[in-house]
Amino acid sequence: MKATVLFSGGKDSGLVTLLLEPFFEEIELVTFSFGREESWRPAAQAAKEIGHPHRVAVFGEAVLEEALKMLLAAGHPGQALNYAHSIAVETLAQEAEFVADGTRRDDRAPVMSYSDIRSLEDRRKMHYLRPLAGLGGRTIRAMATRHLEFVEELSAMYPASDFEVGLRHALANRWGQAEVDRIFPANHTHTRVIRRKRFVQEDEGQEDQACQSISTES
Amino acid sequence: MKATVLFSGGKDSGLVTLLLEPFFEEIELVTFSFGREESWRPAAQAAKEIGHPHRVAVFGEAVLEEALKMLLAAGHPGQALNYAHSIAVETLAQEAEFVADGTRRDDRAPVMSYSDIRSLEDRRKMHYLRPLAGLGGRTIRAMATRHLEFVEELSAMYPASDFEVGLRHALANRWGQAEVDRIFPANHTHTRVIRRKRFVQEDEGQEDQACQSISTES
Repeated sequence: MKATVLFSGGKDSGLVTLLLEPFFEEIELVTFSFGREESWRPAAQAAKEIGHPHRVAVFGEAVLEEALKMLLAAGHPGQALNYAHSIAVETLAQEAEFVADGTRRDDRAPVMSYSDIRSLEDRRKMHYLRPLAGLGGRTIRAMATRHLEFVEELSAMYPASDFEVGLRHALANRWGQAEVDRIFPANHTHTRVIRRKRFVQEDEGQEDQACQSISTES
Repeated sequence: MKATVLFSGGKDSGLVTLLLEPFFEEIELVTFSFGREESWRPAAQAAKEIGHPHRVAVFGEAVLEEALKMLLAAGHPGQALNYAHSIAVETLAQEAEFVADGTRRDDRAPVMSYSDIRSLEDRRKMHYLRPLAGLGGRTIRAMATRHLEFVEELSAMYPASDFEVGLRHALANRWGQAEVDRIFPANHTHTRVIRRKRFVQEDEGQEDQACQSISTES
């Protein structure tokens, strides 16, 4: 079985990847970009550190235009985030059987409704996985910290593949920073995985107990 | 870190255990019983197969009485299932920092509301984990099948530590099968883990890639 993970390079989608590893023979990490050239690079680097194949998918121009319209009209980012996220999930669902993302229990956006999720799975004959949907923010941090080293960065200063960061940059480029300040909360941060902790086993006995072995059968 | 898993011996709480293994040094499996002697035995056997310490906690008499009252008054099991589940989670939360259960995305009961979960975590200074909250039934089956062999059994025929099975048995003993048939859906089944699949590694290179190593640091 292969899982495709919507991957920003942050601790959340990083943790999703680690949670799924023992259950899938193959994991592919996919980063969506609004076309801003450098934003996907930290995600590609994080994917390399975690150790799975990575690719970048670029949203069509129309998606960015629609998302910008939503931001300006609504005056808050929720609707545009939901829209971009749902396009990304639907795009992956056309080609992959298992699609996972890092949306969390405490997120207000992006989030898909229960009926939209059931509809997606039925229409596309696929599985949509939200492994962090039942975990709080503190729990996610504690679990991610066990295997990943990550930094927290001010989104205004560093590019990232987080949907919110992408939309903030696109909005700033087109309409100026004042519109970003009006529509988005101040001081948004994102996390970026910089290292996967790989532990040396202390002895054989411990390894036997601790090691999650993986089959080559399907 | 130690995680305590509310464990019925079925594929759901079994999968929760496997999902958490790489992130916790210690996992304890706890089965709640309504006092019907044999019901916890299949769970103890499943815990041994999966490979983690197991213990049984018995609900107080008052909990069973209250749950039976709810069943008779409501005419459906949702309220009583929620009640027993919340007592179990609250009991574990008094002593454990990380408490997990196998409640699923598609479950109608037992399920705690978002505000009850936040309240629990704040009051008890603990983490409540629902690792299956973002996974559908088909996905859970596919992931569990990768590492666990399990059977599906008619709950009327086999004892089990599933809350619903415990309540059905207690109700039948006290008020007769007719009340069970009135209140619960017909032909309820539960799953029971009978074996953990332990794969032999094919070669060293594969092991390096596939093996999720675990630290001894906290």
